[in-house]
Order: sequence, then C-alpha cells, then structure tokens
Amino acid sequence: MTEIACSAADLRHLLGGSANATAVADYICGRFDAISSKFVDTSYAVDNTYLLFSAYLVFAMQLGFAMLCAGSVRAKNTMNIMLTNVLDAVTGGVFYYIFGFALAFGTPSNGFIGHHYFGLSQFPSFSFDYGFFLFQWAFAIAAAGITSGSIAERTQFVAYLIYSSVLTGLIYPIVSHWFWSADGWGSASRTENLLFGSGVIDFAGSGVVHMVGGIAGLWGAVIEGPRIGRFDHAGRSVALRGHSGTLVVLGTFLLWFGWYGFNPGSFLNILKAYGTTTAAPFYGQWSAIGRTAVTTTLAGCTAALTTLFGKRLLVGHWNVTDVCNGLLGGFAAITSGCAVVDPWAAIVCGFFSAWVLIGFNKLAEKLKYDDPLEAAQLHGGCGAWGILFTGLFAKQAYVNEIYSGLPDRPYGLLMGGGGRLLAAHIVQILSIASWVSVTMGLVFWLLHKFQLLRITAEEEMAGMDLTSHGGLAYVYNDEEKPYV
Amino acid sequence: MTEIACSAADLRHLLGGSANATAVADYICGRFDAISSKFVDTSYAVDNTYLLFSAYLVFAMQLGFAMLCAGSVRAKNTMNIMLTNVLDAVTGGVFYYIFGFALAFGTPSNGFIGHHYFGLSQFPSFSFDYGFFLFQWAFAIAAAGITSGSIAERTQFVAYLIYSSVLTGLIYPIVSHWFWSADGWGSASRTENLLFGSGVIDFAGSGVVHMVGGIAGLWGAVIEGPRIGRFDHAGRSVALRGHSGTLVVLGTFLLWFGWYGFNPGSFLNILKAYGTTTAAPFYGQWSAIGRTAVTTTLAGCTAALTTLFGKRLLVGHWNVTDVCNGLLGGFAAITSGCAVVDPWAAIVCGFFSAWVLIGFNKLAEKLKYDDPLEAAQLHGGCGAWGILFTGLFAKQAYVNEIYSGLPDRPYGLLMGGGGRLLAAHIVQILSIASWVSVTMGLVFWLLHKFQLLRITAEEEMAGMDLTSHGGLAYVYNDEEKPYV
Amino acid sequence: MTEIACSAADLRHLLGGSANATAVADYICGRFDAISSKFVDTSYAVDNTYLLFSAYLVFAMQLGFAMLCAGSVRAKNTMNIMLTNVLDAVTGGVFYYIFGFALAFGTPSNGFIGHHYFGLSQFPSFSFDYGFFLFQWAFAIAAAGITSGSIAERTQFVAYLIYSSVLTGLIYPIVSHWFWSADGWGSASRTENLLFGSGVIDFAGSGVVHMVGGIAGLWGAVIEGPRIGRFDHAGRSVALRGHSGTLVVLGTFLLWFGWYGFNPGSFLNILKAYGTTTAAPFYGQWSAIGRTAVTTTLAGCTAALTTLFGKRLLVGHWNVTDVCNGLLGGFAAITSGCAVVDPWAAIVCGFFSAWVLIGFNKLAEKLKYDDPLEAAQLHGGCGAWGILFTGLFAKQAYVNEIYSGLPDRPYGLLMGGGGRLLAAHIVQILSIASWVSVTMGLVFWLLHKFQLLRITAEEEMAGMDLTSHGGLAYVYNDEEKPYV
Repeated sequence: MTEIACSAADLRHLLGGSANATAVADYICGRFDAISSKFVDTSYAVDNTYLLFSAYLVFAMQLGFAMLCAGSVRAKNTMNIMLTNVLDAVTGGVFYYIFGFALAFGTPSNGFIGHHYFGLSQFPSFSFDYGFFLFQWAFAIAAAGITSGSIAERTQFVAYLIYSSVLTGLIYPIVSHWFWSADGWGSASRTENLLFGSGVIDFAGSGVVHMVGGIAGLWGAVIEGPRIGRFDHAGRSVALRGHSGTLVVLGTFLLWFGWYGFNPGSFLNILKAYGTTTAAPFYGQWSAIGRTAVTTTLAGCTAALTTLFGKRLLVGHWNVTDVCNGLLGGFAAITSGCAVVDPWAAIVCGFFSAWVLIGFNKLAEKLKYDDPLEAAQLHGGCGAWGILFTGLFAKQAYVNEIYSGLPDRPYGLLMGGGGRLLAAHIVQILSIASWVSVTMGLVFWLLHKFQLLRITAEEEMAGMDLTSHGGLAYVYNDEEKPYV
Repeated sequence: MTEIACSAADLRHLLGGSANATAVADYICGRFDAISSKFVDTSYAVDNTYLLFSAYLVFAMQLGFAMLCAGSVRAKNTMNIMLTNVLDAVTGGVFYYIFGFALAFGTPSNGFIGHHYFGLSQFPSFSFDYGFFLFQWAFAIAAAGITSGSIAERTQFVAYLIYSSVLTGLIYPIVSHWFWSADGWGSASRTENLLFGSGVIDFAGSGVVHMVGGIAGLWGAVIEGPRIGRFDHAGRSVALRGHSGTLVVLGTFLLWFGWYGFNPGSFLNILKAYGTTTAAPFYGQWSAIGRTAVTTTLAGCTAALTTLFGKRLLVGHWNVTDVCNGLLGGFAAITSGCAVVDPWAAIVCGFFSAWVLIGFNKLAEKLKYDDPLEAAQLHGGCGAWGILFTGLFAKQAYVNEIYSGLPDRPYGLLMGGGGRLLAAHIVQILSIASWVSVTMGLVFWLLHKFQLLRITAEEEMAGMDLTSHGGLAYVYNDEEKPYV
Repeated sequence: MTEIACSAADLRHLLGGSANATAVADYICGRFDAISSKFVDTSYAVDNTYLLFSAYLVFAMQLGFAMLCAGSVRAKNTMNIMLTNVLDAVTGGVFYYIFGFALAFGTPSNGFIGHHYFGLSQFPSFSFDYGFFLFQWAFAIAAAGITSGSIAERTQFVAYLIYSSVLTGLIYPIVSHWFWSADGWGSASRTENLLFGSGVIDFAGSGVVHMVGGIAGLWGAVIEGPRIGRFDHAGRSVALRGHSGTLVVLGTFLLWFGWYGFNPGSFLNILKAYGTTTAAPFYGQWSAIGRTAVTTTLAGCTAALTTLFGKRLLVGHWNVTDVCNGLLGGFAAITSGCAVVDPWAAIVCGFFSAWVLIGFNKLAEKLKYDDPLEAAQLHGGCGAWGILFTGLFAKQAYVNEIYSGLPDRPYGLLMGGGGRLLAAHIVQILSIASWVSVTMGLVFWLLHKFQLLRITAEEEMAGMDLTSHGGLAYVYNDEEKPYV
C-alpha cells in the first residue's frame, strides 16, 4: 500500500523542479506528513483505550477469584482466603513494578529471563507503555490467585506471603518471558530460531497463567495433605461444602466478565489491518478480536452444558457449583488457542474440557488429593488440554495473520498443518510442569520443613478467621458476639 | 462533503494531462487513497472497541439478573434460580450461535424470519462482524432471564430447560427479526413499505426484549398458579420475602451498570457524523450516545424517586426493594425511546413508569397473580408503557438523525409528529403480546399437560435446592450439615 | 506542526493562479479539508468512547460503596444504608441534571459559582457534551456516599434525604466549581490570576470529592455522637463489627475497579499529542493516562501492604478489613496527584497514607469519635494528605504537559518547583474544610435542633430495617418470619 507520508523532494521533482514546484511540494507534503503523524496519534489513543479497559476487566477477575474462593471455603475461613486474594493484587502490584515486569519483558535479553525496565525505568518507550504494564500486572496476580485456592483452609498466613511473592515476582515472570517476550526461547514472536520452527502459541496463557498457578497449587496441596475430615476413616471422600453458592456464582460470572479482557485483550491493540483491505476492508484485528470473544464464550458455554448433563448422569442432580467449575475449565482451556481457532473448534475444546475436569476430579478423589477449589484439576488439567487443543486445531490463516513475522508457519495438526506446532506445545506443557514443580515444589517443601506451611489441627478445627484474622466474616445475629 | 479518495484520472486531467501530470496525480492520489483506507480501518477499530465493551456490559446484566433473582427468592431455592441464570447464558451461547442469530438477522430474507448465517457461516461480512453477534447474544439471554423470575420457586428444572431453549433460540429471535433486522416487517430501518410509513422505533428493546420476557413469564406464572402460601385461606396476599436484600441491591446496581451497554450500546457504532460538522462539529453519534446514557439514567432515577415517595405514602415505610424495582421499571420503559427523546422527556417517562408498576402490582395482587420478581409487571408493563411513550415523545431531529434512510419521518404525537409512529407502536405491543402469548402460552400449557411444569407440593415446601440441586446454597454453621 | 486543512487560495497562488490552478487547488484542498473534518469526528468518537466507559466505571463505585457500607454495618441496619446509597445515585441524577451541573460548570461565570446550563439547556456545545455531564454526575454522587458512612446506623431517614440533597445539589457543585471549572478561583486551568500563580492541581478530587464527603461526615458524626455501645461505661472503645467481611471485600474491589474510571478518566480525553511526536511519537495523553492508572494502583497497593504489617505489629492479627481501608485510603490520597507524579512517588504517597489513616483512627478513638466506615478519617484525612503530597511531589514535565495553558508553572516543592503549588494546596485544604464545616455543619446542627437528625434509642437498639424499612435484609430461615 502507498505510504501516507510524502517526500517533498520527490513531489517537487515530479512537478518540474521550479521554485513554484518547491513551494507546492512543501505545501502539499507538509499536509500529508501532518496527516501521517495524526494517524500515529490516533492509533496510540485507540489502542491504549482498548488495552486499558481490557486491563481493567482482567483486574476485575481478581474480585471474581476472591468471591469464588470465599464461597468455596467454609465460613470459618472466609476472611483468610479473601485476604490472600487482596494480597495477591497488592503484593503483586509492588513486586511486579519493582522487578517482575523486568524479568518478564526486559528486552533485549536472553531466552530465559529479562533484565531491563526495573521499576519501569525508561518508560514509556517504543516497545512498552504503562498500559501494557498494567495489563501484564493483572495477569501476574491471577496466577497466584489460582494457587491460593488449592491450599485453602489449612495454610499458615506467613507461608502464603512467601510463596505468593516468589510466584508473582519470580517464577511466573520467567515463564511469561519464555513464551510471551519476543526474546523467549519458546515464543512464537521470535524472528529466528523458533522452537521446531514454530514456537508456542499460548495466546492468552492456558500454560503461562493457568498451568503455572495450577501446578504450583498441586504441589502445595500435595505437601500439605488434605484438610481434616476431607476423607473419612474408611478413606471415603467427604464433601466439605463451601459456605455460599451465591458467592460461587457471583465469582464465576465476574471471572467470565473479566475473561473478555483476558483473551480478546491479549491482542494488545485493535487498530491493525491485515492487508486484505481491498477485497474485505471490514476484516482486520478488530474482527479477530471479536472472534476471540466468541470462541471464548462458546468454549465456556459448551463446557458448562456438558458438565451439567454429565454430572446429572453421574451424580443425579443439577449442580450449579459443578456447572460453574465446568464453565471456568472451558475458559482455561480455550485461553491458549482462542485467537487462532474457529468458533466450531471452540465447541470441541469446551466439550472435551468438561470431561478432562470430571476425569481429573475423579482421579483426585481416588488419590486422596484435596484441592478446595479444584484449582489444580481445573487450571492445570484444562489448561494443559487447551495447549494440546491449540496444537491440533489452530487454523492456518489466523496463525499467519496474528504471527505475521514468519510466512508459512506450522499450524494445527488436524487442520493439515503438520505436527510441529503440537510438538512445541507438548514441550511447553513439559517445561512448565517441570519448572514450576521444581521451583514451587521446593518452596513448599522448605516451608513444610521449617514448619511454616500448615496450621495446627486446633486452628484448622476452629477456623483461621478466629485464630489469625480477628474474628469471623459474618455477624448476622448481634447477640452472639463472635469476635475475639 | 468532498470525498477523501481521489481520482488520478480527474486530477491528471486538471493538471494538464502531460506525462508529468500523470506522475503527480498518481503520487498525490495514491496518498489520498491510502488515507481513505486508513480511515476505514480506524472506523472499524473504534466502532468495534465501542461495540465490544458495550457487549461486555450487557453480558454483566446476566450477573445482575442472577443476583437480583437470588436475593428475591427464599434461601431454599437460591441454587435453583442461579442455575437458571447461568444456563440462560450458556444454552443461549450455543443455540444463538447455531441458529438464533440466523433466524434474527439472516438477511436477505422475508419480513418474518431470517435464514442465513447459521453457525456464523460467512462471518465476518460487510454486514456483520463477531462483535455484533456477541452483542446480540447478550441481548438474547436477557429475555429468558426475565421469564425465569416470573416462574421462580415452583418450576421443574426440565421445564426451565425446555422453555428457555425455545424462547432464546426461536421466539425471541423472530421478534427481534421483525423490529431490528433491516428486512423485518415492523423495522424502522426498512427502505420501503414501512409500517404506517414509519416503522417501529424500539431502539434498545422495551418490546423486543422486555415485553417478550415479561409476557412469556406472565403465561408461565398464570398456568402454574401462585406459590404455596402466597395467598392465605382468606385470599389475602402474604409477602414471601426474598432471602437477601443485599443481593437485590447488588443485582440492581449491576443491571444499571450493564444498561449503559444495553441502551447507548444499541447505536452499534460511535464514529459517525450527522452531517452537521460545519456549524456544530462537536455533534455526532457520540453526542447522541451520551444523550442516550443520560436519558436512561434520568428515567431510572425519576422512577426510583417516585416509587420511594409513592410507596411511602401507600405503605408507610421506605422500602429499598421497591425502589430497586421502580428503578428497573424506569429503565425497562426508557429502553425503547432512549435515543430519540430529550432528557426532560425521560423524566416524564420515569415518573409514569413508577405508577404503571405500582398499578400492575396492585392488579396482580387483586387477581392473585404471583410473580416472585414482579417480572411480568415490570418488564411487560413498564416495557409496554415505554413503547407508547416513544410514540408520544420521539423528537423529530433525533429520529431523522438516527433513522436517516427516509426523510421527513413520523415522530412523536405530542411533539407534533402525527399519530403514525404511535400507531406503529401500538401494533408492536399487540403483535408481541399475541405472538408470545400464543407460542410461549402453548409451550407452558403443553409442559403443564405433560406434568413437566410444576414441582410437587412436598418439593416446594422443602425447597428445590435440597430436592434437585444437591444441597442448600448456604452453610454458615458447620455443625448443621444441610447437604444430602 | 503543519495544519492539515488547506487554503485553496494559497495553493492556487503557488500553482501559478491559472484557471487550471484553481481547479487543482480546489480538488486537492477539498480533500485535505475533508480529511481534517474526518479527524475531528474521529477525535470526538475516540474521546467520547474513553470518557463514557470511564463514567460507567465511576458509576460502578456507587455499587462498591453500597456493598462496603452494607458489610460495615450491623445486619439490622443493612437495608437502611443500602437505601441511602441507591438514593445518592437517584436523587443525584435528578438534582445534578436540574441545577448541580450548572452551579459547577456553568461558564462563563464568576470564581465562586456557575450559572449556565440548567437542565442541560444548550447541550451539547463546544465546551460540554452529555458524556461529560454523566462523568461529573458519577463524581457528585460519590461525595454524598462518603458522608452516609460516617453517620450510619443512627440517622433518621428524613435527615439523610435533606443533607444528601444539599450536599449533592449545592455544596459539592460549588467546591467543584472552585477547582475544576475554568472560571474557578482556585483552578489550575484559569488563563490568568491563578492562585499563587499556580492554582490547585486536584486532578481527580482528593479535595473536591473526598475531603468534601469526609468533612461533611465528620460534622454529622460529631453532632450525632457515637452509636449506643460504641464506648462502654468506662469509656473504652468497643468494636461494633460490621456484619459481613465478604461484602467489605466485594465493595473494596469494586471501588478499586471504579477508581480506574475516576483517576485516569479525569483526563476526559485520550487522543491528544503532547507535541513531542518527532522524538517520541509514542508519548502523549494516552501514556499519561496509563501512568495515572499505574500511580493509582501503586499508591493503593503500598498503603494496603503498609497497613497489613503496621496493624499486625500494633494489633497482632492479619486483618482484611483494615487492609481494605488502608487500600482505599491510598487511593483517596493519590487521587489528587495521580496524573502529575511518577510511580515511585505514588509508593511514597501510599506508605504515608497508611500511617495517616492509622493515626487518625487512633485519634478518633481517643476523642470518642464514632464513624462506622472510618469515612472522615479515610476520605478526609488521607484526602488532605494527598493534597499536600501533590504540592510536594508534582513533577515539572507532567504539570506542564497537562496544564499546558501557562508555561513554567510552579510544581512540587521537593522536586525543586518552589512552594507556590504547596501554598495553593494548603489554601485548598483550608477553604474546603471551612466551607464544608460552615455549610454542612449548619445543616446537621439545624437537623439536630429540629430533632430530625438522630433516631430514638429504641429504634437504634431494634435496628432501622425493622422500624423504618419494612423488615430485615436477610431471611435465611423461613420459620422465623422477621418482617413486620
């Protein structure tokens, strides 16, 4: 396409080169240059509007997590779990500002870890503006929120402060560097030496966010062991129901709402043509963003419906909590491929996601693994499925539009794109699982060794709100005064 | 206004037609064409940003409905009603994708029903992009949500699954085709054969959404009859208070928040001049959108205040639940005319809306009609009033700006625009009432005949959460273990 | 920078002035003019999109206030406090439309009060569009919401109706005129006669909103006296715990979410270059907006963390309610300077803000001042600290970019900008404290004199929900039927 900016020298030459021609060329080219510059301003304004409001939506997910977690634990631990959710956001804010962002996106760097932009020095730049930091911060705090669900109702508060800082400030930023920084070893945005000639398309983070949080939670919950009473003396599973289904639904809907920032927002900008303007001027990044919102919606909806009927057949009643978890599992799964698959494929993704969650929940019960939020199963299990799904169903045209640096990229195996994308995705699953297991497993094991991990049985029976947080969350009847 | 795009042939001719002239014309026109194309991209990006975030807000209304409904029923049916709200969204997602959208907007078509774009085939196109689908899906699920309120606390879950699918997938899409598709028989956007030379201005759906949901709920509630205990042996009305005023307020505010997507969002795009740029360059669709947000706000506020003082005089206390319902009634009423009336008229709309709701509630009590959410009265009654209001108060200038295809359109009767718009609006009320009564009345009657509609008296006394949904929503005290 | 619009006469002259030259000039200039006009439309569309969605976020804070307030009072007064929050929004809507906006922004006017645009007459104009009204309305209702927290659980409903109307309709609009209208005596946007040659930089209203609401609440609470039981017979402080920590966290997160509309939204538009496009085309108002979102986030996060550890040391447990209040105090403080300070300074702001709140809370206890929401301490105290902070830390470059009318403005004392900005800010604190004390103090004193202010001791013991609002907020057990 023709440039908008104009060379006064060229135009003057075309006009005959007289003094008049110079003046005319300057007059006209000056205007074209001003227009070109105004378009640059417009792009920044539009794209930042898009990115900032997306970031606000992702932030709203933290509220969703807080309500979902609160509703899923027993009343006596409500204040404890909500405090962890608030602290994910606030410690994350400070740590991610000081060094987390630098470790994740500080280019130029090596493939393993970034090391520029500490404390947002040199902000803004051609590469990064504050809106991007805010968006990435909102992602970072989500990972720690996932983990806190797995180890709910039995973890010392000081343990939470330690693992949460390490996860948000160090472990998560490094993983996001691997797959999202232009320098990361597994990134699909590299300009050369792509993993299997493809790189990993983890568009909004089924692996980077959900698997990281889920695997960390898995090790925390394994090392701590199940809550008292979760399995009876005969080893049978006993449901320790959360105290408020209303909060579970509230949290789930808020997460759904926020996911429209998480997935479509991961495009980062919206004013971008795909070079197809003559034939189909209506098609560009704005369409791909809308399509991503639709694939996200459909994956969640299908997973929820599958869970509804699946659990009805298996358990015998229509369970809203299960439907909520199924829905969220569908979202966690589609998060990887949301931008590069067609809506019909999202339905496939959601359908299998529901069964992945049901299967992992069965397995967890069998292994006496206790995860109050099903976080490892949901974010870890469905997240991993979503990464595989993308390797199978990513569509050629979408992959080339979004990762436009390299022509003729590998794409989904079942779409005829060969196995290289899938291979890269299997490597992503293995590398995340290993990295998080080794690092966060070590953190939890050390906390355990130093007796900083699990609360005492007395505290667990009494509930942490009374023992550590100054009183119960609820006082419905003023005669009973349950504060200490 | 002059075009931006440029004819190189014309310009070359003006420049004298020499070889140099050709080169100059190509050089300059190429730039103008690039600018023109860049403006097209910019428009798509801005308009899709506007539409997508509006769609997210409309989606948030589903959370509002869930919380409002939950708070308005007794604790023992909380899980049941929340599950219906979640399922409205998820079944709606799948059905509206497969065929609902096609029936509503699948042009070219006849005036009754659309039949293109099944499964979003041929998306995106010059006519439709994914953002528009998402926005319309969020509307579709609202209608079914309204109905579930009317029949709350006594309806079999399987009945809900059936009527909800029919309503979201078939009945509602057809009504939205009538008034919102460019081909619809009652649409104000038709290019010829407009109903009474006017068509119906149901801008954001007082009729298409609210009356449809309300009338469907009316028949469901009539056929089921009132809840046990709602009227005592002497026939006196007994309030069956909802279990949480907090959830009612939470839901109401969320609906208010989402209504800013519903009403102003129904413009669908924001970057559109109204051809008045020389005298008033500041005036365009962006102003009309802001004005719509203001009329929406004022109608709701006035209705709430009127309800506050009205009920204080009638009942003797300041009732927050009534104020919330009054507020929502004002919103339901202004939804039809929000874009084409002045702010002062919105105050008139809200004032009468409050009395319409109070009146219908009185009537419902007299007729022993039991609607736990007042949904038929609020969405049906205030919705119908809003449709009439638009026929009375629509302002000439606004109507012509927004429905610009046809000059000198009819407008509000009291604004001097004659009776044709009002006549079209009366036809809308009658046609929606008839269509929904016949179709959804039949659905509920068949469910009733096959004994699929109402739960048993025992289940109703015990509450559906225990009998069908695996346990109560709340466990505040761990000693009582109320799950089954 | 060169203009985009084009003078056909100039161009024709440059082209030689022949008949052909005229045609060419018209042809080319017509296109440039169309482009210029299209950019105007684009700016309005982008800026209104930004402003409207920011306004919606600010509105969502009202929901946040409602939930925070509800959770912070005892269960028996839940309906009462929620009704006041709903009414802040709805009475605010009507009054601010009729006269509040006119008193605040009705230019041209004197420095004390505006007097144009009553009932939004002459809307839209070159100065104001509906989106701006909506944004300002959402601000206005926040002030009254703050005050209602201070006097919760013991105030007659009629007193609330009176003070809320006066505050939203008169007292607050006048203060906002002083500092935010281009005519206001303390405004930094004046073109001449700036206060101390500087004017007040209360960017998003630590003074205009938070101090106004907090000081009003202070006088209300002082005149009413503490709630029964708040201090025991020996004068010791007795915590009257709120009934739901969950609602407190929900409200706090919603306020956080909405604050992204409050602070970054106060730029009002986003498509604005700062004249630095050649060297750093990526830098403009969009960057400043992102930076403002980041400073807001960091101030809140730091204040919350400081409160967590500070209260742990002082009280001995990890208290989520305190952390929430600390967080909100950090936000209230940074609201003044959010746009003109660097992120590191926001951390300083938040750190001290936490200690300001802790200090004022200690003082309040000592003085037997009872404020159920800590509203005077939080919004008044942290708000005042924030105003001082801006006078100390405002950065030269940012001040000149945002208040670009006057070159070489004063800026923060500690940044080398002299003491004039700080002096202006001290005047702001004193003038707001005086104005609100005199006017709202009088209102509360008159209400007290006419025995309209405080409820009876019997009502207070029973709770206002039973005595004035038709029943309790919660009915978890249907056997007890607590409605009257």
